[in-house]
Amino acid sequence: MTSPYLFKNVAYNMKKFFHGTIRVLDIDIRENIENISESVEPADLAVVMLPPHASIVQAEKCGKVGVKALVMITGGYDGDQRKRLIELKEKFGMRILGPNTIMGVVNTSSGLNTTFERGTMPRKGDIAVVSQSGGVGACLLDWACYYGIGVSKFAFVGDKIDVDDVDLLHYFGQDSQTKVICLYMEGVKAGRDFIDEARKITKLKPILALKGGVAEESARRAKSHTASIAGSDQIFDAAFKKAGIIRVGSIEELMNGAIALSKQNPMHGDSVAIVSNVGGPAILAGDSVLKQGLRLARLSESVKSKIESLYPGIDASNPIDLIADARAERYGKVLDLVLRDKHVDGVLVINMLKSTFFRPGDARIVPYIAAKHPRKPVVDVPAGGEDFERVYRTIGNSRVPLYNLPNKAAVALKILREYGKMLQKH
Amino acid sequence: MTSPYLFKNVAYNMKKFFHGTIRVLDIDIRENIENISESVEPADLAVVMLPPHASIVQAEKCGKVGVKALVMITGGYDGDQRKRLIELKEKFGMRILGPNTIMGVVNTSSGLNTTFERGTMPRKGDIAVVSQSGGVGACLLDWACYYGIGVSKFAFVGDKIDVDDVDLLHYFGQDSQTKVICLYMEGVKAGRDFIDEARKITKLKPILALKGGVAEESARRAKSHTASIAGSDQIFDAAFKKAGIIRVGSIEELMNGAIALSKQNPMHGDSVAIVSNVGGPAILAGDSVLKQGLRLARLSESVKSKIESLYPGIDASNPIDLIADARAERYGKVLDLVLRDKHVDGVLVINMLKSTFFRPGDARIVPYIAAKHPRKPVVDVPAGGEDFERVYRTIGNSRVPLYNLPNKAAVALKILREYGKMLQKH
Repeated sequence: MTSPYLFKNVAYNMKKFFHGTIRVLDIDIRENIENISESVEPADLAVVMLPPHASIVQAEKCGKVGVKALVMITGGYDGDQRKRLIELKEKFGMRILGPNTIMGVVNTSSGLNTTFERGTMPRKGDIAVVSQSGGVGACLLDWACYYGIGVSKFAFVGDKIDVDDVDLLHYFGQDSQTKVICLYMEGVKAGRDFIDEARKITKLKPILALKGGVAEESARRAKSHTASIAGSDQIFDAAFKKAGIIRVGSIEELMNGAIALSKQNPMHGDSVAIVSNVGGPAILAGDSVLKQGLRLARLSESVKSKIESLYPGIDASNPIDLIADARAERYGKVLDLVLRDKHVDGVLVINMLKSTFFRPGDARIVPYIAAKHPRKPVVDVPAGGEDFERVYRTIGNSRVPLYNLPNKAAVALKILREYGKMLQKH
Repeated sequence: MTSPYLFKNVAYNMKKFFHGTIRVLDIDIRENIENISESVEPADLAVVMLPPHASIVQAEKCGKVGVKALVMITGGYDGDQRKRLIELKEKFGMRILGPNTIMGVVNTSSGLNTTFERGTMPRKGDIAVVSQSGGVGACLLDWACYYGIGVSKFAFVGDKIDVDDVDLLHYFGQDSQTKVICLYMEGVKAGRDFIDEARKITKLKPILALKGGVAEESARRAKSHTASIAGSDQIFDAAFKKAGIIRVGSIEELMNGAIALSKQNPMHGDSVAIVSNVGGPAILAGDSVLKQGLRLARLSESVKSKIESLYPGIDASNPIDLIADARAERYGKVLDLVLRDKHVDGVLVINMLKSTFFRPGDARIVPYIAAKHPRKPVVDVPAGGEDFERVYRTIGNSRVPLYNLPNKAAVALKILREYGKMLQKH
């Protein structure tokens, strides 16, 4: 992690994206580091990417000239070196993120980007990510960039000699640019404080967590992988519940859940209506909704008969099959009627067979109608590959989250429901 | 489904892809269908896409001139109309697929393509798909095309007045171009025959099944959606087990499992080694492997010490973390050593942080080494978005299946293990 190539990438990213002033000191570590003449200047933040001893030397120089915060990228610090860093932090009142943060921080608003993935910058948005692992964080960052997910900040916590999970939670809890907080964690140091801080935040904004090292064997490994101790999984589960943190099972669920929470309001009941133009995928969606512990809404008779009289041939039992030739008009009318039904808490739309006769209006009607019923979440499934991409290109930036398969949309609704339940408790 | 636009798409696909001779009869259904003068000619196969009455008239003409098989696209046949079709099939000895197949058939080898998704043709390969639902089939087809999955044939079964699941199973069981059979089903008519036929086939080639209408409420709906009766889910589960059919939970698992079975040999034990250049994703992979009921292989001491002496600083406990700067040489050596270990039955490779310093050789080494150990399956996870795409572009056509997240690769290994167990029983 001290390769000049990676260092150049960090410098490149800082210059390319950051809106403030930057100074790059390219220190040759083959020289006697204590005698390097290049001077460190006062700054709000210094990014240090050198082997441990050289990093400490530079950290001290930073402290002396009044640098307020350090992002320390590299790892491999021994006990004495960590102690020395903590002394510097206390002596100069600097905050330190790391060491061993690997990728450091990304802030889409200020343009701060200390990652070594050249040119990698997610779209501006309101999802914050905190990762205890460089690898998982890098995967989440790549995922966010590739799928155009709107991000406020990324933080890679590393060895946490100073800034820790609680500090970051506190920060993101207050951060007006962050609406949803995503955590990847393997262990936690100050468990009680973490729960207390999270409990305060989850009343205001949702926190999603993916826990690594769930199984005992992986957990044993996790112990050596980061500096913190991976607790038993049951303890984590109880802690997450107590804190109001919504737990997810994979990187994809973490991102898909965050997108749902960022775009839609929580769901205030268990009853889901499925509005589809194809039968089979609607049946799979029904299976998934029930598997997630949600219910298939029993539509009001008045709504059913209204739909059936408007569109003879349609059976408006939930899942509602609009038939393959449904266009914007039919989708719009039925979706509106269903969202007005007091027996419906949220809607899963399926919008398929579009490749050959796609019209943008067929996609746009969904967020248009959904916006009229902001209290009830709507998720949309243009199931498949090209079908998904076409709809994504058309309404990917709308407030309706899109998923390429019904089971993923059902998980998203489940997460919206869990957050709804959490809020009801308070 | 009788729209002239869709009809034109079917004709377009037939002309574009089919290697044989085609004649398109564009019949105007506003005319008196009995008196249409256009003559039907002798042929191996006729595709009929007209409303029920008109379809029956044309089916009879086909029978009279000796057409051997009909693909009947449209639905909506009443009892008398079905009876009439069955009479025609018996009188003329024609085979009928449908009616209500929606998309009909695709054969990547002969180029036969009766779907109305204009220009949609999957890559040639050895995965066959049979779908009881037009919508799910269309989604699978779109998925296969979009992700470049190699397909032998697609069949949309529809109302099964003649050709049914058992016939199709039998056909694909014998088909030398098909190595893996994927089923989407909501119900089955001749349950006993279906199990008997599947039992014979699964000794020779794997069958994967996704069942729709699992939950009671969806099942009730499924009943009205297709002509067959959706059985209780437990009965299906028992039947699948008895038949040696591997059951999956989603469209993505169906496709990912088929890719694994098509490219790799079954796994002959439960022990998985994880070879990764990042810690966190390897921990998540370990969790997923254990969640799937597989085990993390305990490497032989000799293999461990060999790896650790070759690469000081690496802890060769499984999951093996090769450290982020691992390149082709380190991946190749370690993967080869691990595959030689008799305690290892299969390997999950994680290959990350590639976006900025990707070299094709780093990806190519994985299938190169895997090919030397054909009895042990290897799956590769270039986790993320762009990272995945880069590696996919490089080795997407190799014999090593690629997944964008570790949990998906663990499911693939589980499916390879299930097929291995199935074969051991015989």
